Amino acid sequence: MDVKEILISFLDQFEFVSEEDKQKLSEKLNVKKYSRGKLLQKEGEIPRHCFFVLEGAVRRFQLSDGLDKTIEFYTPDNGSVSPESYINQSPSEYFLETITDSVLMIGEQERDAYLIKAFPVLEKIIREMMQREWGAAQSKLALFKLSSPEERYLNLLERQPELMEIAPLHQIASYLGMTPESLSRIRKRIASKIRLDR
Amino acid sequence: MDVKEILISFLDQFEFVSEEDKQKLSEKLNVKKYSRGKLLQKEGEIPRHCFFVLEGAVRRFQLSDGLDKTIEFYTPDNGSVSPESYINQSPSEYFLETITDSVLMIGEQERDAYLIKAFPVLEKIIREMMQREWGAAQSKLALFKLSSPEERYLNLLERQPELMEIAPLHQIASYLGMTPESLSRIRKRIASKIRLDR
Repeated sequence: MDVKEILISFLDQFEFVSEEDKQKLSEKLNVKKYSRGKLLQKEGEIPRHCFFVLEGAVRRFQLSDGLDKTIEFYTPDNGSVSPESYINQSPSEYFLETITDSVLMIGEQERDAYLIKAFPVLEKIIREMMQREWGAAQSKLALFKLSSPEERYLNLLERQPELMEIAPLHQIASYLGMTPESLSRIRKRIASKIRLDR
Repeated sequence: MDVKEILISFLDQFEFVSEEDKQKLSEKLNVKKYSRGKLLQKEGEIPRHCFFVLEGAVRRFQLSDGLDKTIEFYTPDNGSVSPESYINQSPSEYFLETITDSVLMIGEQERDAYLIKAFPVLEKIIREMMQREWGAAQSKLALFKLSSPEERYLNLLERQPELMEIAPLHQIASYLGMTPESLSRIRKRIASKIRLDR
């Protein structure tokens, strides 16, 4: 699929968008392909863009005391990359990079304000996306607070299984708040449970 | 202030809302006063309403294995109470209660869809609110993952200082992911630092 087709198939999920608006929006919205390892945002810089992952995956991380800490993975089911620093136009505390070849929709405040005026349906699309993402972000926070490391891992498998193919073990471990060794132990334990259940 | 005035002063922050729309919205939107300790949502029930805290505070919590675990506090700066279960219409995993006398705006999916049609400006209001809340939720998750218990406490003091007056110590400790004893030690340490700095 070319990027325009990918965008249209993304818009298909919003049943209130007419075919005509889909075509027009797919010409106006900014969508690009990126190779794996592209740095999209640096710590300390004020974000000029926000992103939405249509294909692939983006990682949000922090470098502190020589450690690389993964905060978030964004994949198509959880695709809006628009942290507080973008919304408030304050310096970013994080880095963003693609961890696989990706197709991203790119937002920019002034242009988006203009597009929303030209296509009022975009307001509803963004509102629905934000509501969904926000609900998911709240659930993630609750889960992180309440659950065991093993439950966190199982939840990640359920919500973003593609990450297991894309992200290296140490990034997934850091994201789950554990060491790579603990994650390996948990994976072994789960694998042997599955064998026993057969 | 009566509830209508409270609502109008909330709407004042959105500079794109005309005075006429503010008056009309304040007649249509559903705002109510609640006493402290009102149970707004039970675990296991599909949420019929979402809420926005205009005054006071709402706590989201879970009861499991005889323990009361605080997941979130909602106050006017962080007021949208509309968890994933409301958005997806699935059974709630949490309880919601007011922890002080509160003024809440109440949403309900069908009625809100009707109001958005009648007042298109509401779409933009909700979109801006969601975007802000979502940015804040992401920051909270990052903070919870990356920071020390003391940093979490200081951040809470900065973001929602009113909670110190309203919520009992054990709820704040549970929310910060620590024991009440650890929180007491942290508070003492900070108090003595402040004395030394004078």
